[in-house]
Amino acid sequence: MGMRDVLVGRLGGLANRWPWLAAKVNPLVINKLVSACRTRPHPWSTAHDYVSWTSLTDQRWSARHLPPAEAALTTPTAEELTGLFARSGDQSMSDKSTVLFPAFAQYLTDGFLRTRMPRTGEPEDVRLQNTSNHQIDMCPLYGNNAEQTDVLRLKSDAPGERGRLKSQLVGGEEWAPFLYHDGTKKAEFAKLDDPLGLHPDQTPGRASRIFAFGGDRANAIPHVAMLNTLFLREHNRLAGRIEAANPAWDDERVFQTARNTVIVEFIQIVVQEYINHISPEVYRFRAIPSVAWKAPWNRPNWMTTEFSLLYRWHSLVPDRITWGGKAHQIPDLLHHNEPLLDAGLARAFVGISDQRAARLGPFNTAAALVPIEKQAIEQGRRVRLAPYAAYRQYMNMSPPQSFGDISSDARVVRFLSERYQRPGDVEFYIGLFAEDPSRNTPLPPLIRAMVAVDAFSQALTNPLLSEHVFNEATFSPTGWAVINGTNTLDALVRRNSPHGAVEGPITMTQPGWRHRR
Amino acid sequence: MGMRDVLVGRLGGLANRWPWLAAKVNPLVINKLVSACRTRPHPWSTAHDYVSWTSLTDQRWSARHLPPAEAALTTPTAEELTGLFARSGDQSMSDKSTVLFPAFAQYLTDGFLRTRMPRTGEPEDVRLQNTSNHQIDMCPLYGNNAEQTDVLRLKSDAPGERGRLKSQLVGGEEWAPFLYHDGTKKAEFAKLDDPLGLHPDQTPGRASRIFAFGGDRANAIPHVAMLNTLFLREHNRLAGRIEAANPAWDDERVFQTARNTVIVEFIQIVVQEYINHISPEVYRFRAIPSVAWKAPWNRPNWMTTEFSLLYRWHSLVPDRITWGGKAHQIPDLLHHNEPLLDAGLARAFVGISDQRAARLGPFNTAAALVPIEKQAIEQGRRVRLAPYAAYRQYMNMSPPQSFGDISSDARVVRFLSERYQRPGDVEFYIGLFAEDPSRNTPLPPLIRAMVAVDAFSQALTNPLLSEHVFNEATFSPTGWAVINGTNTLDALVRRNSPHGAVEGPITMTQPGWRHRR
Repeated sequence: MGMRDVLVGRLGGLANRWPWLAAKVNPLVINKLVSACRTRPHPWSTAHDYVSWTSLTDQRWSARHLPPAEAALTTPTAEELTGLFARSGDQSMSDKSTVLFPAFAQYLTDGFLRTRMPRTGEPEDVRLQNTSNHQIDMCPLYGNNAEQTDVLRLKSDAPGERGRLKSQLVGGEEWAPFLYHDGTKKAEFAKLDDPLGLHPDQTPGRASRIFAFGGDRANAIPHVAMLNTLFLREHNRLAGRIEAANPAWDDERVFQTARNTVIVEFIQIVVQEYINHISPEVYRFRAIPSVAWKAPWNRPNWMTTEFSLLYRWHSLVPDRITWGGKAHQIPDLLHHNEPLLDAGLARAFVGISDQRAARLGPFNTAAALVPIEKQAIEQGRRVRLAPYAAYRQYMNMSPPQSFGDISSDARVVRFLSERYQRPGDVEFYIGLFAEDPSRNTPLPPLIRAMVAVDAFSQALTNPLLSEHVFNEATFSPTGWAVINGTNTLDALVRRNSPHGAVEGPITMTQPGWRHRR
Repeated sequence: MGMRDVLVGRLGGLANRWPWLAAKVNPLVINKLVSACRTRPHPWSTAHDYVSWTSLTDQRWSARHLPPAEAALTTPTAEELTGLFARSGDQSMSDKSTVLFPAFAQYLTDGFLRTRMPRTGEPEDVRLQNTSNHQIDMCPLYGNNAEQTDVLRLKSDAPGERGRLKSQLVGGEEWAPFLYHDGTKKAEFAKLDDPLGLHPDQTPGRASRIFAFGGDRANAIPHVAMLNTLFLREHNRLAGRIEAANPAWDDERVFQTARNTVIVEFIQIVVQEYINHISPEVYRFRAIPSVAWKAPWNRPNWMTTEFSLLYRWHSLVPDRITWGGKAHQIPDLLHHNEPLLDAGLARAFVGISDQRAARLGPFNTAAALVPIEKQAIEQGRRVRLAPYAAYRQYMNMSPPQSFGDISSDARVVRFLSERYQRPGDVEFYIGLFAEDPSRNTPLPPLIRAMVAVDAFSQALTNPLLSEHVFNEATFSPTGWAVINGTNTLDALVRRNSPHGAVEGPITMTQPGWRHRR
């Protein structure tokens, strides 16, 4: 740890207490994290092995931090490598994270890490492409494009209805409308993507409770539907307040102003609650937009293929998750919104916050998720990622000289050394999750460093946070006051719960957790 | 003129002679010009009157420098205002520009200032949108999207054919293939846009000579087809050299590498030949990419509705243009490629360079073009542009206190004062072209200031010029040598003329023109 790091660490501790100091330290720390690697535009994408106009401009292809390797490994087999992930014995649990942490990570990344999935008859190679807007735009809530946004909106200029998203009351609480009627997608929602992996005829009971959401992954598990429902309510709550404050505004203007506000609230939660949960530092990051205004890393967003792989945190998910006192295995939760509807929103958040996440790392993935670990390894090979060691160097971290440099766990070292000739051969996805855990953070070092770069450089460059946009006029005085108020998941849930407060904290960090020196 | 401007002017003169000084002065001057107004992202677009996620992200709408006025003027009528443009008496001619200047301006801007034109049955309001890629991407040559690029390519891996665009020989010279066969668009070109405003059945002779180009405006007049043909030949010439130097490369890689090179050559001509022609300074700008790498104005491109209006330089076009010794009026040149084919490429360039452009300004537009001046005025009202005075202020220029502040020409002052109550009422489009001409430049002050901002901040931010892309690997050693060689229109025409040199200069600046103090 260099002198500069020590200084930054010390300042960080003080800055939490002294806001004037925080304003100085925040850009310092963020710039340091983001400067670990090359700035955008990335020269390469999955379109070509070399620089092309397509690789520089066609965002249907995923960008890449490093150019492709000559050839992907074929041995060891992907199947064999899943042995690094599959749990043997009891699952080890996180000492820091609640289940709200992986739930939020999934909801967040489903919005922009969107590998294009093959439809019937399409080749596996479509996975080289994506369906991302490359922005934190709340597309799980608002849809992927203007046509989808349109069908999700109530579109009424009647007083009391302006600017609202469509919703329904169930059990006295507000939810998105259901997508299907008698097993058939409602005509009004024809423009919405079908929920990924759902076969409505195979599970008619579950299909009947699928929400008409903007995102094709937002019904995947009830935790994610829970988060999307929260922001649906927050949108409609804000629309009501903005309409009341601006009676001359039409449906369109109320809608757009509420949406501006919700997107910024979400980014505030991403930085201040989610990233601070990930960070091992005492210092707490703040979503101060000005840090990006003159920054050399303020360049057009473009999600990378590496980013979409390093975010597959399957081992965070515990084997069993409890809803309303009943333990569910993961497969039982897929496209299953009934437990969420039964619990109600506030109780769902409190319940999820009361369960420990599992520990991210080797030999800890629940059996049901091991097949998707295999898919991730295959995806890394499909795009011919450079090896793990090359990414360590790219991120200004030492590449491993021995398998022991990757992990101090003898089981991991044995696993790797029996399968790879040299530490330099270890694949990206394998190395990421083989690394030793770090103190005070749920993420091992390389994942954490790359998440920091992509998170800050793509969240804080949001156009709503830009120099000439981030002001009261953009959000209306009502929205601006909300943005400058308290925006934590806990606060959002409480102000959107019609049945009043539910006891217990809503948190990604276990209440008993304390920072260790 | 402040001390700083004097200094910059002096340094500029010296810098032309001393390359080491040029490297210092170039960013200084460019940053000063671009910093005249707000940096992107623009808060507003033609989508909404206020900031919305759509206005910040949906590039089908045009961005705007200033928000819309409450209401557009309805008097004076647009028809009446065309009186400011319509020529009375002899056309006054430019003392600096040849006809190659307006030809190049048209070719350049047709690539990115692309107002969406109503098709049969569509409302006039579609003109609020655009069909631009918001990049200098040579789309008139390569098409607007991947599907169009595909049909323009030869797509052959045979030796001697790799990476080429489709072409044909006519009179021993290389041209794009013809688009129509027996009056019908060829099936292979179905994906190309129809040439804007062409009715092939009404002018079958002309239609038979329409080229299969990427751009729907690239056949509009033979001058523009001439420029596109030049870059078609340069692309195929480069592809041949790149193929020869890299015999293992396939069609795709040769194509992409040639395209990378052609786009940069074009930007070099834009900055070094075209912008220097516009500039009144002695100092000659250079296309040094590094100026943009850390610049606060390096933000995603987005063409503005103001930019598309201020670029309508109809009065630059002389009444009559000579092709092969025959004088043509403008309507006779529309979609008329025969004169170009007859002349051959080199003679066409020399002939265009040998004719004076008209002077840009009031009372000087050829009769045939007056109806499109009216359309421009209507377009300004359609998007409810703020008045001319507001744009002067926005660009850090003094707003007019009297009509005499706009122009020293008594006819212009009389025209404006008879039609507007106050100088502050004068519309953007009217004020732009009413201004007095400036010394040593074809453009009046406000147009020039706004062109400089948009030109530099959108050309030099091209991803091919970016920090980690602008290197030999992106262009291959062959392309890199070309980029570092001489790229003027004159040099390009000569190296792409099979019949050898044609006498006479190829130039936007009249050969006899001298800078005046």
